[in-house]
Amino acid sequence: MTATHLLSVADLGTDGIEEVLRVTDSFVEVSARAIPKVPALRGRTVVSLFFEDSTRTRLSFEAAARRLSADVMNFAVSSSSVNKGECLRDTVETIDAMGVDALVVRHGSSGVPWQVAGWVGASVINAGDGAHEHPTQALLDCFTIRQRRGSLEGLRIAIVGDVKHSRVARSGVLAFTALGAEVTLVAPPTLLPPSLEGWPVTVSHELDPVLVKADVAYMLRMQSERMTGSLLPSRREYTAGFGLTRRRAALLPDGALVMHPGPLNRGVEIAAEVAGMPGSVITSQVANGVAVRMAVLYLLLGGAG
Amino acid sequence: MTATHLLSVADLGTDGIEEVLRVTDSFVEVSARAIPKVPALRGRTVVSLFFEDSTRTRLSFEAAARRLSADVMNFAVSSSSVNKGECLRDTVETIDAMGVDALVVRHGSSGVPWQVAGWVGASVINAGDGAHEHPTQALLDCFTIRQRRGSLEGLRIAIVGDVKHSRVARSGVLAFTALGAEVTLVAPPTLLPPSLEGWPVTVSHELDPVLVKADVAYMLRMQSERMTGSLLPSRREYTAGFGLTRRRAALLPDGALVMHPGPLNRGVEIAAEVAGMPGSVITSQVANGVAVRMAVLYLLLGGAG
Amino acid sequence: MTATHLLSVADLGTDGIEEVLRVTDSFVEVSARAIPKVPALRGRTVVSLFFEDSTRTRLSFEAAARRLSADVMNFAVSSSSVNKGECLRDTVETIDAMGVDALVVRHGSSGVPWQVAGWVGASVINAGDGAHEHPTQALLDCFTIRQRRGSLEGLRIAIVGDVKHSRVARSGVLAFTALGAEVTLVAPPTLLPPSLEGWPVTVSHELDPVLVKADVAYMLRMQSERMTGSLLPSRREYTAGFGLTRRRAALLPDGALVMHPGPLNRGVEIAAEVAGMPGSVITSQVANGVAVRMAVLYLLLGGAG
Repeated sequence: MTATHLLSVADLGTDGIEEVLRVTDSFVEVSARAIPKVPALRGRTVVSLFFEDSTRTRLSFEAAARRLSADVMNFAVSSSSVNKGECLRDTVETIDAMGVDALVVRHGSSGVPWQVAGWVGASVINAGDGAHEHPTQALLDCFTIRQRRGSLEGLRIAIVGDVKHSRVARSGVLAFTALGAEVTLVAPPTLLPPSLEGWPVTVSHELDPVLVKADVAYMLRMQSERMTGSLLPSRREYTAGFGLTRRRAALLPDGALVMHPGPLNRGVEIAAEVAGMPGSVITSQVANGVAVRMAVLYLLLGGAG
Repeated sequence: MTATHLLSVADLGTDGIEEVLRVTDSFVEVSARAIPKVPALRGRTVVSLFFEDSTRTRLSFEAAARRLSADVMNFAVSSSSVNKGECLRDTVETIDAMGVDALVVRHGSSGVPWQVAGWVGASVINAGDGAHEHPTQALLDCFTIRQRRGSLEGLRIAIVGDVKHSRVARSGVLAFTALGAEVTLVAPPTLLPPSLEGWPVTVSHELDPVLVKADVAYMLRMQSERMTGSLLPSRREYTAGFGLTRRRAALLPDGALVMHPGPLNRGVEIAAEVAGMPGSVITSQVANGVAVRMAVLYLLLGGAG
Repeated sequence: MTATHLLSVADLGTDGIEEVLRVTDSFVEVSARAIPKVPALRGRTVVSLFFEDSTRTRLSFEAAARRLSADVMNFAVSSSSVNKGECLRDTVETIDAMGVDALVVRHGSSGVPWQVAGWVGASVINAGDGAHEHPTQALLDCFTIRQRRGSLEGLRIAIVGDVKHSRVARSGVLAFTALGAEVTLVAPPTLLPPSLEGWPVTVSHELDPVLVKADVAYMLRMQSERMTGSLLPSRREYTAGFGLTRRRAALLPDGALVMHPGPLNRGVEIAAEVAGMPGSVITSQVANGVAVRMAVLYLLLGGAG
């Protein structure tokens, strides 16, 4: 990875993704040690700049940075109290001037990490921007699938649910297809983007026929605010049509994986029993998330020491 | 301590309490060094999960973890924004999956730390659950009394005030009596639990006769919301009957200790001058709190390295 | 620096300021290293006690403490939720009793850091108290001027804007004049203190004639709440009379510096283009802030190890 920033999966390309996954392997090994800590980034400072609340992603990056012996500083603020534009720029430039090494940015608006990258000398990592991208999620998903299935080449991956508003889906499609998987998006028309031109995917409005041939059922989180709006008749109807119920999970071929980016709405997009069944790798996704983020931080910051 | 968790004083038993106090001795010594830090828990991660605001307890655990060279991550959230049940479970399991070693849990509802312990691989420390238990407070109280009086055996300890809503009182009764002290609860009937069956204590509704024979006057904090409710005629009347005023403090035998878990309502349950008098060990309680929490973390996590 | 606390620039005197600046030189060098970290304060604990929101100042102190290998704990609370007096005292004494080494205090009321210093054994650093003082800001400003101009001796420094409500102005006047600079305050009468008796400054109500002879134009931040009140006719009129516009910046002699404590109101007290022009050292102020705070922490805590 010769890049300075990790903004989009597209920047990495297939080789870049493969490199992150290879480095992740060694950090999974570090994480299993009695003292899961290496001095690789000692004296480096990683700042989390979260303009949107996400404890799990923030803690995952924080754990990753600490295992590399980096210092971590948190800057959390609601989007409302910092205006986009001058004020955001001022905040970001000030933090950059303190001599920090990486900014992990989460923001409710698409494109903010690119703006930030234009203003600073530090490395910028996109930890989720609006409904746009979430590259470390896609990388940890790839790593988890590879860990269980050896490779993504030729695998059939169904991404199910609210694709329209999902940065997880966007980054996932880019990463999964870059590694050779075939992706099918499964959603009602109201939860698909207005245009899918250029997306290397198949689309289905019915889940059952896709599941019977799927190697991975990737269930997206259904935001509660969508469930009461005009996009869906009702939560119950959504679950009836697109939830991974016990009956549907039984349609999956042997060895198929069930994945979810969390947090789960149990009983909505996924049944509680399904989340806990053997093919579910949801907990592995979280555990691998720390190792993948270690790899990303190491590749971006490690060489400059 | 062979346990994985510290949920209740009852789990420790007399031997367990004694072991914590012995280990605390050595950490009091560490804390007095020019560099009060040991590498005992290097590479371990302690997460504070506070669903109820308590800066002092959080900072005390954080200071303890850092002196043992552990990494500390904070997760603070109001009880209102995380529903008990699935959501809490999801949060806790996610943090556990990141590979953390201890969860320090404070929650407004009794029993939550037990639930959490059932869901995770990490060690769970109860940092206060509702009106139920607060074991590290009881341990630091025992340590402070032992430090001044050599032993708790045969000491007469008066616990005064809102016993009904006090986790400090519950854990204190268990720990003090396990170490051989005689406990008298002093409170108006409205501030005692509906039943005291099985509590190894004496009860009094009058403070003066208890104080003249007490080795320790342990004043509980009076929550301001209780003082205006139906449980008490008025704040003034409470202080008149149960406050440790200057006059009352003079009734205490020589060498008696005055204790309080903090934060103090000066002028309500304790007079400002009394909090500052020589027999008051309130500041020692805070200082010992860090060493006791070091001992607990060390005993729970130290052996597994 | 033989003092225990840093409360006011006045406590330092000229020698004290010079000492801080000398030590800062070496920490600027440390900050430029590949691993910008020294073990000087290993095992020491610095607590930030911010009763007023200020992410930039808090992060600057936090970065400084970490580069010295100190542990950092954050205590943030809005002024509203802690009453001045007993409650503040209780909080501060409790944190002090945990055995911390320095308290970095920011509070909306003048004098609070002095109160805190009277209650604790730890070193207290004033990180801004009301409209009173902000000594580390003045020190970083002195360092930045010295870095560019060699010395402050005989320099003409214009401090422009809302002097009345500015702790930056108060600490700046003390520090700049102690090092031999001549300070002119430039503001409309409504934004000057009622009395300037004893201030070693010149006053002007017109900016242009001051700028043509100034070595430094120090623009104060205009709080948005002042711009709509009775002190100013309008924001536009303020900028017309006292803003550092492009036209005005051209009046400055060659080599003059433009400074601002941040955050900037671009287009109000300073034009966006002016903030980015070569004579502007605003980014250097931020970078030097970390090194100056390292020096202050080192001088206050370093000798006691």
